Amino acid sequence: MKTRIHVTLKSGVLDPQGKAIHHALEGLGFSGVNDVRAGKLIEIEHDPALTDAELDQMCAKLLANTVIENYRIERGA
Amino acid sequence: MKTRIHVTLKSGVLDPQGKAIHHALEGLGFSGVNDVRAGKLIEIEHDPALTDAELDQMCAKLLANTVIENYRIERGA
Repeated sequence: MKTRIHVTLKSGVLDPQGKAIHHALEGLGFSGVNDVRAGKLIEIEHDPALTDAELDQMCAKLLANTVIENYRIERGA
Repeated sequence: MKTRIHVTLKSGVLDPQGKAIHHALEGLGFSGVNDVRAGKLIEIEHDPALTDAELDQMCAKLLANTVIENYRIERGA
């Protein structure tokens, strides 16, 4: 079973990587982009027995820094 | 309009970051995890006029290294 975890910076937190991507896209001639935010995608292949609570704990303890990041768990994708 | 782009390593490409996360999860006492792959999530806020072809070009030219990475565009999420 595969679960995807999306980790994104909270709004208001500066995102220099996103800014750099935005700038590079404009440099390549792409217009119409208003904002870019960069985040992480973590794919976990696990036993079906792993509970939602365990996945949530993995995020809170290791995968995301909850001071500045939000996470979203997309189970069984 | 917000579009999410998921960039993941192709299967067969070594993923030391994923391995490190897997190892750390085991160190924290989480069992039942078989594999972890780390990727990138890029959120683009753009005009609705931006075409799918343009988004695809952004990925191919800048956002993903198509030699070792796959990308998936999730438009209008």
